[in-house]
Amino acid sequence: MKYAQMTKEQLIGEEKLLQEKYDEYKARGLSLDMSRGKPDTNQLDLSIDMLDILTGKEACLSANGTDYRNYGFTDGTPEAKALFAELLEVPAENIIVMGNSSLSIMYDTMARCMLYGVPGGNGPWCKEEKVKFLCPSPGYDRHFAVCESLGIEMICVPMMPDGPDMDLVESLVKNDTQIKGIWCVPKYSNPEGTTYSDETVRRFARLQCAAPDFRIFWDNAYMVHDLYEEGDNLLNLFEEAKKAGQPDIVYLFASTSKISFPGSGVAVMAASDRNIAHVKSILQVQTIGYDKLNMQRHVQFFKNAAGVKEHMKKHAALLRPKFELVLAAFDRELAPYGIAEWTKPKGGYFISLNLSDGCAAKVFALAKEAGVTLTNAGAAFPYGKDPRDRNLRIAPTYPTIEELGLAVEVLCVCCRLTAVEQQLHKMS
Amino acid sequence: MKYAQMTKEQLIGEEKLLQEKYDEYKARGLSLDMSRGKPDTNQLDLSIDMLDILTGKEACLSANGTDYRNYGFTDGTPEAKALFAELLEVPAENIIVMGNSSLSIMYDTMARCMLYGVPGGNGPWCKEEKVKFLCPSPGYDRHFAVCESLGIEMICVPMMPDGPDMDLVESLVKNDTQIKGIWCVPKYSNPEGTTYSDETVRRFARLQCAAPDFRIFWDNAYMVHDLYEEGDNLLNLFEEAKKAGQPDIVYLFASTSKISFPGSGVAVMAASDRNIAHVKSILQVQTIGYDKLNMQRHVQFFKNAAGVKEHMKKHAALLRPKFELVLAAFDRELAPYGIAEWTKPKGGYFISLNLSDGCAAKVFALAKEAGVTLTNAGAAFPYGKDPRDRNLRIAPTYPTIEELGLAVEVLCVCCRLTAVEQQLHKMS
Repeated sequence: MKYAQMTKEQLIGEEKLLQEKYDEYKARGLSLDMSRGKPDTNQLDLSIDMLDILTGKEACLSANGTDYRNYGFTDGTPEAKALFAELLEVPAENIIVMGNSSLSIMYDTMARCMLYGVPGGNGPWCKEEKVKFLCPSPGYDRHFAVCESLGIEMICVPMMPDGPDMDLVESLVKNDTQIKGIWCVPKYSNPEGTTYSDETVRRFARLQCAAPDFRIFWDNAYMVHDLYEEGDNLLNLFEEAKKAGQPDIVYLFASTSKISFPGSGVAVMAASDRNIAHVKSILQVQTIGYDKLNMQRHVQFFKNAAGVKEHMKKHAALLRPKFELVLAAFDRELAPYGIAEWTKPKGGYFISLNLSDGCAAKVFALAKEAGVTLTNAGAAFPYGKDPRDRNLRIAPTYPTIEELGLAVEVLCVCCRLTAVEQQLHKMS
Repeated sequence: MKYAQMTKEQLIGEEKLLQEKYDEYKARGLSLDMSRGKPDTNQLDLSIDMLDILTGKEACLSANGTDYRNYGFTDGTPEAKALFAELLEVPAENIIVMGNSSLSIMYDTMARCMLYGVPGGNGPWCKEEKVKFLCPSPGYDRHFAVCESLGIEMICVPMMPDGPDMDLVESLVKNDTQIKGIWCVPKYSNPEGTTYSDETVRRFARLQCAAPDFRIFWDNAYMVHDLYEEGDNLLNLFEEAKKAGQPDIVYLFASTSKISFPGSGVAVMAASDRNIAHVKSILQVQTIGYDKLNMQRHVQFFKNAAGVKEHMKKHAALLRPKFELVLAAFDRELAPYGIAEWTKPKGGYFISLNLSDGCAAKVFALAKEAGVTLTNAGAAFPYGKDPRDRNLRIAPTYPTIEELGLAVEVLCVCCRLTAVEQQLHKMS
């Protein structure tokens, strides 16, 4: 029975029962972590053979004999570019293969915008009175942290089932020259697992912006991270933007952090000819080159896009049961009481759980007290503030299946207890 | 006989002889490169066993079982910090182990100064009307490129046999609040191979600056790059600055680019508690972490500072004959004619050759035409402009000993031909 339909007596009975369960969990001194989107040990083992794949000098040579153990190739090896060109469906000449982290590429790109501006703009963003960015929310906390750190004002845009609210996006960028860009995780979005519809992607490609130097930061973090054979399809914004006559509007980012090793993967950016030429002109001042031997490891291990996709099926086989366990628990422990909604992603790393307004921070605190660490309530919103205090990001990947089962049980009890108390409070 | 003492007839005879030699070389269609400070293939082979040193999961675990294949450790692994602490003689807590390139750390540090400022300063440097940097010259072209790219005005400071002209440095920084820092390669400086004297280091430590946010960018690129058993000793600026009561004045940088693999090494920065806390607070926005597996490779291969120093003896054995070949050629082919001076470094990657004023660009062009690529004349000076047009940076490391021998022969002929022509021109 839904809590909203229960009598006060029924709710008091339910509260007592839940409090007992909660106290039991608390007494067990648990220490469970569902806070971050980290692969588990078994996933890391999938790429273990990559570590010693470069044996001897020959493994470090390009097809034409270039020695990747030495300086050079500021924009990445041709072989690594070819691999990512196939994966991203972008021409190799529009790709720069960089270091170990797409987050640091995105930060660096934003810092470059601040210090130099972008092609078609009026100089460095840091010289402007104010810079604003659109932030589809809930979204990725580390994107928002980059803006906050650089003093870029964030404007929330609600996420809809097919991507950001494009009516709002279009109306905001049309008149405000201070709005310089938008953060997007277009496939299996963090935290909702939403994939932008074709129409949303096309509207991005055609976006009419008052700022001549507007950029879409297109973080395709989960491009090949399907949980099921039949994954979501994302339209190619690079192509669509070109067709729409504004190829410069998009910066694409991706990495192998959740394909090979987080922290020891390879990350890339892709963009139009003009954008890439501009980035390279500054990049050659920043560095002599990125780690070509690590690019070589990835190329030799995966061979091509098909190799990556085969590899991702092994990840999916490990992750699917975890996602399904959480969703089944929510169906069993939350659905009957009408106290929450959640997403059912077909890929990515997260499930987004929406409680009644005003409940998320309480559930987070209760869970913490019982030894279950969740991502901070509000983390998925700019400045860490969820305006409705209702969203929790569930990260099921890192714990073992046993730990996860227990953690979700505790979480569900915390959700129910908070909901019952809220319901009782409304009655009083 | 010195050219200055020759009669016109003697000079004309010499010119004819040299022109014939030059034409002979030119006819051979040579293609020799002495332009960049790159290790040669044999040096790269010294570290080849590092490539597959991580075999299996256990090799990726820290002493206490942390899995370095996953996210975390924004400031580097404790093991890597310990290794560099020993090498740099700086406490581990004052070190951040980062990515593959100290140049990119230096760029990033400068960008951070521009965007955020530094502890003790008045905010972001990019908000100031003008920022100036002192550039001991000749110096490292890529340092100067960072300033030029970010619009930082460069002021030349002459290099003396014991480091930069400290009288000039002290008098400049005393009154000008726009001077925010200085670039230094304190040991085996690029390109002269000069090691700063203890007195120079102490004067840096005690430097009285009008700008409260002045920083010494101390690029210890050649800290263990001795050519001889008896290397130069560099006083520890980190310690001296602390003793002098201004620990925050220095940012130290180093890398293993010329110890293990250029582009696939590990780079670090070191600084005071306050500086490090400030950098970390921004770094955690920039990245989740650097490549810990590559740190682990280096730690397992080298073990400790003694291991690095043993390894560097093997590099020295390969490099010494090359330096000695060049110096012997200069002694034989240039010294008798009184047309040049050069440094005789005990370490590092370069020899600095000073010709008569107005000769460097001509020699560069002549050599180029004969198939010998040198570092651009003027490259070692801010904005690529050598005020006296006399300096050439000689990079003897990359060519084979045979190629090097031939390249230096050609170079010496070009130097002599240019000098003879200049002498004749003076007479006419």
